[in-house]
Amino acid sequence: MTHEKSFENAIELAKSMTSGGKPVLAADAILKKSCELIDSCGIAMLASNGNNGYPNVKAMMKVETEGIKTIWFSTNTSSKRVVQLRKDPKACVYFHNEKCFKGLMLVGEIEVLSDLESKKRLWREGCEVYYPLGVDDPDYTVLKFTSKWANYYEGLQNISFDV
Amino acid sequence: MTHEKSFENAIELAKSMTSGGKPVLAADAILKKSCELIDSCGIAMLASNGNNGYPNVKAMMKVETEGIKTIWFSTNTSSKRVVQLRKDPKACVYFHNEKCFKGLMLVGEIEVLSDLESKKRLWREGCEVYYPLGVDDPDYTVLKFTSKWANYYEGLQNISFDV
Repeated sequence: MTHEKSFENAIELAKSMTSGGKPVLAADAILKKSCELIDSCGIAMLASNGNNGYPNVKAMMKVETEGIKTIWFSTNTSSKRVVQLRKDPKACVYFHNEKCFKGLMLVGEIEVLSDLESKKRLWREGCEVYYPLGVDDPDYTVLKFTSKWANYYEGLQNISFDV
Repeated sequence: MTHEKSFENAIELAKSMTSGGKPVLAADAILKKSCELIDSCGIAMLASNGNNGYPNVKAMMKVETEGIKTIWFSTNTSSKRVVQLRKDPKACVYFHNEKCFKGLMLVGEIEVLSDLESKKRLWREGCEVYYPLGVDDPDYTVLKFTSKWANYYEGLQNISFDV
């Protein structure tokens, strides 16, 4: 899809989401839509507080989720991200569907976990490429994100709610 | 593509990017690769500093770019993002290609512009869906992001450099 086509689609979708200027997205559908969006995404964007007050972003593979409340990732213990999150657990996890012009921002905090139970829980076939020593690899760390509030958008509408 | 397939692809790519544990990505190719990645993306993730010290993320349509130094967006003047950026211009713009497992993080600052020249520059056909009053719409604002430094990753390798 070209960028121009993508832009046209977004405009069409934006138009379709309103009727006479009024939003048509029912509030009670938001949670369901949020979960569906998460389920459809293999990747999430993780934002943390980097050096000198600048936010940093990285794409992360979503490994496990519990509704919109808890999102689990794994990463290298030696990564800059882990250093940042140990210093400041405040984070944002963002899911989006570019074609459908939908996005879900979750704002909350991340726990950096290194207990064996969590590491076993998140371990998948192929993880040894990232963590050659296996599930015990000291360079293998689990990140558990817990949402405090969320913002869901679709077309021109968006709504914020507590999680 | 299923998530499992995506994960397999990432592993294959991660393996192909190293040879006997050594990175094979030449440093002088990074800037070229960064520009190519930006060109291939219609959407960027914009992170700003939200309330109470939490980072916030939103997908934004990339409208214009000048290499990796300057990225231009437009948004609603009334949006929460504009309020945040006026208070704190520190931001992060992130481009990524999920299939190829490539990402570029740009860290820098955003200027919130409302001068007619900038607004005309960024105006595109279809913008009136977002800004019904046209290029003069007071609810139409231009965001000019200027990079200070960058981090590019591909497979298991990543490199940070000043912009």
